[in-house]
Amino acid sequence: MTLPSSLDELIEALRCLPGVGPKSAQRMAYHLLQRDRRGADRLASALHRALDTLRRCARCNTFTEDEVCDRCASPKRDPSLLCVVEMPVDLNTMEQTHAFNGLYYVLLGRLSPLDGIGPKELAFERLLARATDGVVKEVILATNFTNEGEATAHYLSEMLHARGVKVSRIARGLPVGGEIEYTDAATVAQALIERRDY
Amino acid sequence: MTLPSSLDELIEALRCLPGVGPKSAQRMAYHLLQRDRRGADRLASALHRALDTLRRCARCNTFTEDEVCDRCASPKRDPSLLCVVEMPVDLNTMEQTHAFNGLYYVLLGRLSPLDGIGPKELAFERLLARATDGVVKEVILATNFTNEGEATAHYLSEMLHARGVKVSRIARGLPVGGEIEYTDAATVAQALIERRDY
Ligand SMILES: [Zn+2]
Ligand SMILES: [Zn+2]
Repeated sequence: MTLPSSLDELIEALRCLPGVGPKSAQRMAYHLLQRDRRGADRLASALHRALDTLRRCARCNTFTEDEVCDRCASPKRDPSLLCVVEMPVDLNTMEQTHAFNGLYYVLLGRLSPLDGIGPKELAFERLLARATDGVVKEVILATNFTNEGEATAHYLSEMLHARGVKVSRIARGLPVGGEIEYTDAATVAQALIERRDY
Repeated sequence: MTLPSSLDELIEALRCLPGVGPKSAQRMAYHLLQRDRRGADRLASALHRALDTLRRCARCNTFTEDEVCDRCASPKRDPSLLCVVEMPVDLNTMEQTHAFNGLYYVLLGRLSPLDGIGPKELAFERLLARATDGVVKEVILATNFTNEGEATAHYLSEMLHARGVKVSRIARGLPVGGEIEYTDAATVAQALIERRDY
């Protein structure tokens, strides 16, 4: 049996979504057609609208509907500090601390050779150009402390050092309110290594 | 921080897909915008086209672009036998056997009270109307032998018996080439119970 071509094409098209194989694409297609036609219509329109209106902020690399996003255009931020994060959610968390008033560069990813994501895919040269523009005085690497986040920070620090840029990395240690007894040994070890004068 | 509205809306819209929560919706949106804009465009168009062209076959309930699908319209099939399956993939497998020349009714699902899928959601009354049209002589229940498939078969058999329709269920037993030693006990037990005169 062949499926109607428009159904076949929908199932194929759903496979562009990460983590969606043939089985779940089929399940999704039937779900939308049987039980959520409004959702399907809304999704189609949202996709078209996002493709039409979104582009990368020329300064921080996040998706924006303008040439430069609101934050990067704000005169209240300190442009001499540039904080590098992996994703917009990380930027959100940084902002919630109210402890940082500089600007950001969002990688929109992390180095992940197994997924074919290298320095080129993440457009590291754009970050380098930004960090060496004469305004930035320090780059703070705030990628995650996962293997991939660490590798990304390491790679970036080498590139930035080679160009004479001051680079720092956010600290590891116990969480606020954390008890040593209940903290994993690797974190306690790191808190020791990264101890500060008191 | 607020995301650009078109990005926010895309992330929200992706959540209409079954099994997609806020985290994976976000991951999907960034993936499409960063790495697969063509796929996103194709998906949007495929959704619109599927919504526009697909409807249920008036006879077998599968999605088709016509009033009645090719199989149901074929004069070569025996309309007195009606085989009930859960999904089009099941129908495909039945067809590959070349052991059945009747017609089908595709439930496009199975009873699943926890997911809110009952007789109404599966439009059992359409199947009943079809099974009691005077042409169908036997309904063969070929739902899966999972808990949900079994419950569906049981429910349908009661409804059909109540209307005097002859109902059968496909058999359980060892697979062709199967060895008793390597078959699970429940299947061997069922093969015993469903033994045939020889
Ligand atoms: Zn920006
Ligand atoms: Zn049909």
